Amino acid sequence: MSTPQLNIALIGYKFMGKAHSNAFRQVARMMNPAAEPVMKTLVGRNAEAVQAAAAQFGWQKTDTDWRKVVRRKEIDIVDICTANDTHMEITLAALRAGKHVICEKPLAMNLKQAVKMAQAADAAGVKHMVMHNYRACPAVALAKQMIEEGRLGRIYHWRGTYLQDWIMDPDFPLVWRLDKHAAGSGAHGDINAHIIDIALWLVGAIDEVCATMETFIKERPLLGGTDAGLGAQAAAGKGAVTVDDAVISLARFRNGALGTFEATRFAGGRKNGWGFEINGEKGSIAFNFERMNELQYFNREDPAHLQGFRTILATDASHPYMASWWPAGHIIGYEHTFTHMVGNFLNAVAHDEHPHPDFWDGARVHAVLDAMSKSAAARRWVGVPEVVPQPVLV
Amino acid sequence: MSTPQLNIALIGYKFMGKAHSNAFRQVARMMNPAAEPVMKTLVGRNAEAVQAAAAQFGWQKTDTDWRKVVRRKEIDIVDICTANDTHMEITLAALRAGKHVICEKPLAMNLKQAVKMAQAADAAGVKHMVMHNYRACPAVALAKQMIEEGRLGRIYHWRGTYLQDWIMDPDFPLVWRLDKHAAGSGAHGDINAHIIDIALWLVGAIDEVCATMETFIKERPLLGGTDAGLGAQAAAGKGAVTVDDAVISLARFRNGALGTFEATRFAGGRKNGWGFEINGEKGSIAFNFERMNELQYFNREDPAHLQGFRTILATDASHPYMASWWPAGHIIGYEHTFTHMVGNFLNAVAHDEHPHPDFWDGARVHAVLDAMSKSAAARRWVGVPEVVPQPVLV
Amino acid sequence: MSTPQLNIALIGYKFMGKAHSNAFRQVARMMNPAAEPVMKTLVGRNAEAVQAAAAQFGWQKTDTDWRKVVRRKEIDIVDICTANDTHMEITLAALRAGKHVICEKPLAMNLKQAVKMAQAADAAGVKHMVMHNYRACPAVALAKQMIEEGRLGRIYHWRGTYLQDWIMDPDFPLVWRLDKHAAGSGAHGDINAHIIDIALWLVGAIDEVCATMETFIKERPLLGGTDAGLGAQAAAGKGAVTVDDAVISLARFRNGALGTFEATRFAGGRKNGWGFEINGEKGSIAFNFERMNELQYFNREDPAHLQGFRTILATDASHPYMASWWPAGHIIGYEHTFTHMVGNFLNAVAHDEHPHPDFWDGARVHAVLDAMSKSAAARRWVGVPEVVPQPVLV
Amino acid sequence: MSTPQLNIALIGYKFMGKAHSNAFRQVARMMNPAAEPVMKTLVGRNAEAVQAAAAQFGWQKTDTDWRKVVRRKEIDIVDICTANDTHMEITLAALRAGKHVICEKPLAMNLKQAVKMAQAADAAGVKHMVMHNYRACPAVALAKQMIEEGRLGRIYHWRGTYLQDWIMDPDFPLVWRLDKHAAGSGAHGDINAHIIDIALWLVGAIDEVCATMETFIKERPLLGGTDAGLGAQAAAGKGAVTVDDAVISLARFRNGALGTFEATRFAGGRKNGWGFEINGEKGSIAFNFERMNELQYFNREDPAHLQGFRTILATDASHPYMASWWPAGHIIGYEHTFTHMVGNFLNAVAHDEHPHPDFWDGARVHAVLDAMSKSAAARRWVGVPEVVPQPVLV
Repeated sequence: MSTPQLNIALIGYKFMGKAHSNAFRQVARMMNPAAEPVMKTLVGRNAEAVQAAAAQFGWQKTDTDWRKVVRRKEIDIVDICTANDTHMEITLAALRAGKHVICEKPLAMNLKQAVKMAQAADAAGVKHMVMHNYRACPAVALAKQMIEEGRLGRIYHWRGTYLQDWIMDPDFPLVWRLDKHAAGSGAHGDINAHIIDIALWLVGAIDEVCATMETFIKERPLLGGTDAGLGAQAAAGKGAVTVDDAVISLARFRNGALGTFEATRFAGGRKNGWGFEINGEKGSIAFNFERMNELQYFNREDPAHLQGFRTILATDASHPYMASWWPAGHIIGYEHTFTHMVGNFLNAVAHDEHPHPDFWDGARVHAVLDAMSKSAAARRWVGVPEVVPQPVLV
Repeated sequence: MSTPQLNIALIGYKFMGKAHSNAFRQVARMMNPAAEPVMKTLVGRNAEAVQAAAAQFGWQKTDTDWRKVVRRKEIDIVDICTANDTHMEITLAALRAGKHVICEKPLAMNLKQAVKMAQAADAAGVKHMVMHNYRACPAVALAKQMIEEGRLGRIYHWRGTYLQDWIMDPDFPLVWRLDKHAAGSGAHGDINAHIIDIALWLVGAIDEVCATMETFIKERPLLGGTDAGLGAQAAAGKGAVTVDDAVISLARFRNGALGTFEATRFAGGRKNGWGFEINGEKGSIAFNFERMNELQYFNREDPAHLQGFRTILATDASHPYMASWWPAGHIIGYEHTFTHMVGNFLNAVAHDEHPHPDFWDGARVHAVLDAMSKSAAARRWVGVPEVVPQPVLV
Repeated sequence: MSTPQLNIALIGYKFMGKAHSNAFRQVARMMNPAAEPVMKTLVGRNAEAVQAAAAQFGWQKTDTDWRKVVRRKEIDIVDICTANDTHMEITLAALRAGKHVICEKPLAMNLKQAVKMAQAADAAGVKHMVMHNYRACPAVALAKQMIEEGRLGRIYHWRGTYLQDWIMDPDFPLVWRLDKHAAGSGAHGDINAHIIDIALWLVGAIDEVCATMETFIKERPLLGGTDAGLGAQAAAGKGAVTVDDAVISLARFRNGALGTFEATRFAGGRKNGWGFEINGEKGSIAFNFERMNELQYFNREDPAHLQGFRTILATDASHPYMASWWPAGHIIGYEHTFTHMVGNFLNAVAHDEHPHPDFWDGARVHAVLDAMSKSAAARRWVGVPEVVPQPVLV
Repeated sequence: MSTPQLNIALIGYKFMGKAHSNAFRQVARMMNPAAEPVMKTLVGRNAEAVQAAAAQFGWQKTDTDWRKVVRRKEIDIVDICTANDTHMEITLAALRAGKHVICEKPLAMNLKQAVKMAQAADAAGVKHMVMHNYRACPAVALAKQMIEEGRLGRIYHWRGTYLQDWIMDPDFPLVWRLDKHAAGSGAHGDINAHIIDIALWLVGAIDEVCATMETFIKERPLLGGTDAGLGAQAAAGKGAVTVDDAVISLARFRNGALGTFEATRFAGGRKNGWGFEINGEKGSIAFNFERMNELQYFNREDPAHLQGFRTILATDASHPYMASWWPAGHIIGYEHTFTHMVGNFLNAVAHDEHPHPDFWDGARVHAVLDAMSKSAAARRWVGVPEVVPQPVLV
């Protein structure tokens, strides 16, 4: 009996489009998922550009109208890699057409949108997943496994940071990611969202937060040329940055743990420096994405004179996901966080199981993001609403 | 011409008494300070214990009455290593007797006391220093030097943590440090004070803070026997922990930088894990005390393909304090942070210069400590009052 | 104008077959090579197994007879991933058919075979490359670039190790890699070959070597069942290990540098721990494959108080190969060393340029391997013959 | 009952004199040895210089004639920190006077001298110790303890390096350490001796070695002025370097382990970078002196998914020597390797026990040093003679 095939339509073809395409291309070659993805259609507004991308990434067809594509009978899964402000609309359309949906993070523009999407997805009876891909780092999945094995015990501390430095140059231009209308927020929604998801997954629900944000460079050169549709003249001018460059926050978890969060694009030398440390009663774990194949672990129950933080090189067949890859010690790269996520999703569809993180998980991240934004604006602690799936009436 | 001698009286002989004694014993052997300390009198309440300590550490005399000792003509410098709630009283008495004063950190019980001590010290016209010894780690002093050399430029971020784990066992008893009346606070005054001092020194004044605190283990076994003066019966009982186990805080610096602080005794595997990272427009530096001879430095002005965090092993004669020690690569230990501080103080006295950090610096730490405590209690942002020395009327 | 296509035949489908297949599948998707590979035919002796592998890896056709395949007109490039003792025969057949040839390392069974292959390849006028894939780690290629930029100056030391631990269990069975007839040697040809190639590339020619080898576990359980064609009875028995478990060697380079080499399968905890340190008059570099995206660099010309080993995270667009991948800080994995090598080869074919490392480079590795083997047997220093390409008479 | 006192005479007052003085001054203050050292007499040829050093380091008296001093009744222990070529003469004189003797490493000029010294010391019935101080790094002593606890099992590999860079500048002058007559050898006797001692202690006896040496900078500026007694004219000239800049060696241990040794003064960026890795059947350990408070440990018997090299911060009271110092996480420095050694020796004298490493251990290091030198000269493997104490006829 052969592996079933599932046809994919991918909307969007930039950085995330490249990463998701790679995952679809690789997953069946490496992971033996229960269903094989067929890279059917790549969708983008610019016909020429999307055709070039499809040729580059290996898609069979292209289209410029996502509305038509998501309704096509041949499509089984719609994967959304567009700007955040289009996630809800595309998702709802795909759900109406009965498609399984994968959506890039952050799931929506805010909690309200996210809950609407999650409810619609449940009601549609399809599989839905938000691409919080970092859950699928083998070392992070190992952290989850170790917590479930009881190796940390009661958790006291979460310390999460996401440090980048790509806009530190004051001459870096005013790209859309620095425009509130286009991007919603800056470092907050883009990268804080990642560590919030990991915190919720590993430590649990957050009760309340207290945050503050800052924009260090308040004006930047306007983009000239075709990007902004402005003349060369305008390119000489400057415009206001309307999103945060950095956000820091305190948090209290429901289980009593204290947490700190920091996300910034102004940490010189930290390129994609996201990581965390968790301290529990029985042990501690720490992770740094720039060494994504490694997990630090301190076992308080080792003999006293032999205790120490150990570097687990999570590349052994005994580690999550790694049986699919190479012999131990042969590290894997960033892109396979997506490969693993797509593999999980294909398995969920094929086995009619529930994938994770689903849209409710995506909504929970928004609950925290929104509370932090509100806290930063109001300069006070803000409670995080509990996000509970609504029962679907059949 | 021979080096002048200065007679020391040290009040207190436990952990800090041992560390300060060692510094006085070593400083003239290694650093050639402009004045040589004479270890004249060690003071403690228990005659037998203080005699044993004096024999162990190398003091000429002992006494049980600090009031008498600080007034003795032969004493030039009074060094205070007692519990925090006695710092002010002893300091003021020593100042009245015209002695130079060194005081352990935190300087006092609160900002008000600290300012009173600083004003009195200025009025007395003597030299005064608070023992924020970590400024005298060579690698930390190198960080200061690099900032003054302009190698970081405008500073965007401070990320400071002080992580310990010595009271994680729920059976660890209710020692005086866990009693608010005796200790004032828990991790906050004990270890957060250290990283606050370093932040103020390296980054500058803090405008406002928002903190929260937690006591994870709320009851602990009472100390039995001689310590608590209770019978074996009582030892079976438990008492309430009345100080914080951990504190986390946000901060905004006057220069626009964002800061985070965390101090905890519940970070398993972190023994004396205090450290920081500072991100500036031109570079970043990072420090971890458990590798106290090293400073991490990222230079954003290196050629692009050669940029990276470098580990400066601050043991070279070109590094602060290190010309006094061994050839490069031969690391020094914790205790010499005190040796360097004492050396600095002796030089200040001999040359009639102003030592640092002085009592005003100690008061500035209290201004932040108090603001964080208030913030944690009130659950809101709290401004940090500016601490400005009052002119002394001559 | 479209990119030309080149049809590939791959002989072999185990570990290396999987890695090479992945490279052919990915290279045009990521690197924009000047020619696009077409995964035409996968070849193996077992029809069923090779068909399964072809389906898994994405090959169009399969065959069980490499002799026929290498002669097929449609094939442009033959890639050889079979056992070492077949490399020469297959290569010579492919060359006779005028095909470009890629061959796994070590190139041959010994220097004599290797030279014969190199001469034949030159005479055939085709492109030839030996798959010393580790040259294509971006961080290793950066090391090469830095040496060429003169950043190390005169080189004094090479310190190379290749540490693994996968056969430390005495119950690990007597696989073919532990049989001299099948494998030629143990750790020596398998992994010492890698660091020898890197040494030759980065430091230059080796004049003489002095080596010794050891087999720590001299008998191992025989493999039962289909692998060895023996009955279950035999499986209970043991057989002699006839290859080295470990080899260590001294070396003198032509430029006056001293070198050490160590390759072992008995270094517990080192999974694929190959690395090197090079000390030059102006600086030092160090590399550890288990952190393959990083290169350590010490610049002796930095200001004295700022010197230190820096960790270059070689993931920036300014680093070799990395413009093809992800933004800085998003690391890549082991498999892309092959992707880069295949990309280089395709470019060489398309542009009619000379690829590296070619078969002569492969022969140079054999010259060192053979000298070390001879040295270990004779217990003395052995000179390494110079390998110079013979002029091809046209 | 009070602690007995032992009067010390120290011959030599430069780098090692400073380090030993510090140890005598500190040991009773920190370690509670069973006997207290009295810093009686510091001896040196230059009266003025030795008086200055005695004042600096805290000695009661000085002398310029070691022959007289070692015979003085008041002296209990003679400690020898002079140039290597005087070790034997001073030692034998001190032994004749019935003194306990501590001698800096390397013990002598060669194996023959060393054995003579050891035999004389045994015959004298006194305590004798060679100052291979690195055995007394707590992390190294922990390694020894772990090996004795059976945590490594059978040992397969030793990998030892001692890397420095202090003479890399070609303008660094021709100091006595670069003169064979004064120094005996270069990096070999100075620093290779250290790692040889550690290898013998941790792994066991070495059967045979094969070494090579190199002098990279063959001529250096002559020292002018007072140092060399030459005029300014001569200072402009150059002289030949007559010792090795670097030595590398293979070794075979009696227990079947393979070993490599490297000692060099031309490893840019490595200041006092000595370290080792040992791989055993049950685990591995690794050490790097520049992080001397840390020991790396890999336990092959941990659960598979939790294995990793752990960093033991050897500063806990459960670690060797550390109960004498500070709370866990407060690291100690280089100088206390001497403090611990002196403490061990005082205990040995007070308890009439045998100290280690004794002169026979020092002779065993010479057996290896001599064999490596012979091997380098003869370009072949050389056996290491077994050094067995001769019975003393009473």
